[in-house]
Amino acid sequence: MSTPNSYERVELEGLSTSFFLNNRQRFIKNLKEHIVSLPENSYLFLMGGKDLYRYDNDDELFYFIQESNFYYLTGVLEANYYATINLTDASVSLYIPQPTEREKIFLHWETLEQIAEKYKCQTFDLVKLPQEINRLNPKKIYVLNGTNSDSGNKVLTCDYVFPAPYDKLNDIVDHDELIYEILADTRTRKSQEEIDLLKYINQVTVEGHVEAMKKIAKNYKNKIIERDVENYFFGYTRRKLYSRNHPYEHICGCGVDGATLHYINNDQELKDGQLILMDMGALAGGYVSDVTSTVPVNGKFTEKQKQIYDIVLDANKQVQNNAKPGVSWTEMHLLAEKVILTGLQNLGLLQKDYSVDDMVKDRVAYYFMPHGLGHLMGIDVHDAGGYLSFTPERNKEKGLDCLRTARYLEPNMVLSDEPGIYFIPYLLEKGFNDEKVSKYFVQDKIKEYYDFGGVRIEDDILITDDGCVNLTEGLPRTTEEIEKTMSSN
Amino acid sequence: MSTPNSYERVELEGLSTSFFLNNRQRFIKNLKEHIVSLPENSYLFLMGGKDLYRYDNDDELFYFIQESNFYYLTGVLEANYYATINLTDASVSLYIPQPTEREKIFLHWETLEQIAEKYKCQTFDLVKLPQEINRLNPKKIYVLNGTNSDSGNKVLTCDYVFPAPYDKLNDIVDHDELIYEILADTRTRKSQEEIDLLKYINQVTVEGHVEAMKKIAKNYKNKIIERDVENYFFGYTRRKLYSRNHPYEHICGCGVDGATLHYINNDQELKDGQLILMDMGALAGGYVSDVTSTVPVNGKFTEKQKQIYDIVLDANKQVQNNAKPGVSWTEMHLLAEKVILTGLQNLGLLQKDYSVDDMVKDRVAYYFMPHGLGHLMGIDVHDAGGYLSFTPERNKEKGLDCLRTARYLEPNMVLSDEPGIYFIPYLLEKGFNDEKVSKYFVQDKIKEYYDFGGVRIEDDILITDDGCVNLTEGLPRTTEEIEKTMSSN
Repeated sequence: MSTPNSYERVELEGLSTSFFLNNRQRFIKNLKEHIVSLPENSYLFLMGGKDLYRYDNDDELFYFIQESNFYYLTGVLEANYYATINLTDASVSLYIPQPTEREKIFLHWETLEQIAEKYKCQTFDLVKLPQEINRLNPKKIYVLNGTNSDSGNKVLTCDYVFPAPYDKLNDIVDHDELIYEILADTRTRKSQEEIDLLKYINQVTVEGHVEAMKKIAKNYKNKIIERDVENYFFGYTRRKLYSRNHPYEHICGCGVDGATLHYINNDQELKDGQLILMDMGALAGGYVSDVTSTVPVNGKFTEKQKQIYDIVLDANKQVQNNAKPGVSWTEMHLLAEKVILTGLQNLGLLQKDYSVDDMVKDRVAYYFMPHGLGHLMGIDVHDAGGYLSFTPERNKEKGLDCLRTARYLEPNMVLSDEPGIYFIPYLLEKGFNDEKVSKYFVQDKIKEYYDFGGVRIEDDILITDDGCVNLTEGLPRTTEEIEKTMSSN
Repeated sequence: MSTPNSYERVELEGLSTSFFLNNRQRFIKNLKEHIVSLPENSYLFLMGGKDLYRYDNDDELFYFIQESNFYYLTGVLEANYYATINLTDASVSLYIPQPTEREKIFLHWETLEQIAEKYKCQTFDLVKLPQEINRLNPKKIYVLNGTNSDSGNKVLTCDYVFPAPYDKLNDIVDHDELIYEILADTRTRKSQEEIDLLKYINQVTVEGHVEAMKKIAKNYKNKIIERDVENYFFGYTRRKLYSRNHPYEHICGCGVDGATLHYINNDQELKDGQLILMDMGALAGGYVSDVTSTVPVNGKFTEKQKQIYDIVLDANKQVQNNAKPGVSWTEMHLLAEKVILTGLQNLGLLQKDYSVDDMVKDRVAYYFMPHGLGHLMGIDVHDAGGYLSFTPERNKEKGLDCLRTARYLEPNMVLSDEPGIYFIPYLLEKGFNDEKVSKYFVQDKIKEYYDFGGVRIEDDILITDDGCVNLTEGLPRTTEEIEKTMSSN
């Protein structure tokens, strides 16, 4: 797979307007497939993200990130806009607050004409929004309404209230949750342009991970901190992508820290003989990667580390060998569980008297991997569309309830494939004391791993017509490849 | 001035508990000076910052930053806490939400005992808050209430409502705005520990600016972007301080971008012959620096650039020569204006027929420096306490209305000293068309500077007993020093 280069300056120049026109057209097509009675002259009315400040003061909280649905459909990078999308021809109108005299002096601002040219759309002063929408004489004004299935948080709804004399427009505002669901569903299947962008981000992420691996091996004797490792990666991707924001809080956990799934302190010193788990992704053009490597601090796996690592790598690869359209993601999770259980049984950490199928049925793998196999990806790290009213619902069984989607795979979906084995004493003790599963564990053997930490191997995969491809290709993954990379300074 | 080293690992290890005890004691002392009738057994009840998520999804918005007042008084770095401060003995109790079973597996969490030890205070499960506060039998429960004078935003108030059977506690909650004002006032005068920390952050900031200057000179021929310059600095300070957040959005503006006061795009290519204005500060231990350098992209000032630069540097230095306790900050602003107006008149940009005093009276400097001379600094870049009910009120005159404080200087205040000259065509044309001031401008001469951009020179200064010291000492400031630094790769 070659590295696409057309996105190298995307953080400086933005994506093309056709990228987002394509998103809108695919959304409208999907909408028409679900809603046969979509009225003519109907519009989607969107509110973009607003500037946020740090508590009471006047410092902006962080470099502005656009709300994901607004971004997906418009590509607009600025805060405080509203938009309507014509659901017949996919055209966009933007309603833009105009700068005050003071802002004209202080800020880099563009005229409505410049913004219209930049986004290839109509632009209006925000104060003219009600009369402009009224002029369209819409039959229906849809707004997004729904709940993110990962967070349980409500989707950002356009809460604009039309004032008199345009207040009759409020009567045709439609909050049907299906509209949001169809948008979320559209987001799960990527366009070729989205795929190319994700490939590019993944390739830079691979380079950043390699940079981190090499610098760890070079510097670990100098009392470096997990935070340094975070900086090796972020320094690299920030230089290469020009991006300022993280896609998520990076996890760099050495030794036992690797067993804290959402470990973000990253304040401990790396020690010779430890593994370090690095969950570090990049962001560009509003899309993200999510990649984890686990490597030995000193560049050389111990036999014990290699044994656990190879089980996780096997799970990661078997998922990639089996993921294809029509396969259930739950089935892939269970496949990874089986590989992990088999491996741990062979290593003597699980009793040999029981079958792996029994252990799967009794949800034993949960005690070593208390998270889902992976998740949809795109604009959000945990991307929208995991659970919708027209897709399989969340499984209630232990561990399976962590899965961020139970969907059947479709071409052009992008997901993370991230099995792991962690030794979390708190969780394992719960297993030892649970009468349903305690019989499966070889407790003394497992306790030998209490200071081990964890191993996770996370690639981003693209579902194709007949299988999947690994967007994270090129990252050293076998223990031999990692050792070679870390000794090649 | 030597570089203090005791704060090198502050982002990893936190500040000492005595740092914050000192803050509390000084606050209580100030409180007692203002409020003679402070009831015995009274408490300040505080709500800390809460976790924020990126719109509807489950990604945290950014690395958590504690609310400034909560941080100042408690030093607590974690989200979602409440606190009471005993206004007699300055002791703290923390009320802490306890992790769910899932969080115990996913997060790095500490027991109430561990947190009590870490912060040297009492700790309680948040669910026990009402009975614990009831047990204290308080006479008065103060909460913060007020408005930030920079942003106009309300201060984060503790909005906790005591449930039955403890609801009579709601009757003794006191929202007196004076309490917040006294806290903000206390924050304006730094302790020795705060000063040492600010010195350290400033010294690393100086190193980061020098790094940026050298790298610009080394790389400007390779089509580098303003964003690269931002990365030179942030890469350095992130490595050195281990800090993840910016104190504010960095400004790197080359050429005309230097005249956009809050220019944050930083997406243009540096060009030979331009100046670049770099407003880049650092953050560590919850405190910040705010420093601006303006340097020639190619390492060598033109005569035209040097002339403007030297005026600004003169203004910056004259402020430092005159700032001392008892002097009004407004007076310092006017001093900087006079230096700038005199310089521009000597250069032939302002008519020689008028006196500088006339120009000051008619607010002419505003058209070249439409911002205040500087602001209080500390935890917030624009720190609290600029305007309070017991300090001088905001001046209404053009330009002076931008000042973030009009206070009389006091020992241990820390402020930025940041005069500038900018050529903002939009603003200058307003001046040319304003009948009150148009007579002062030599329009043709000024128009020769429309592509010049701007120069700002910003140091952080500490008011001492009889003057001030420059915390940003060591940064190359004269044109000779800058040229020498940029040629010394």
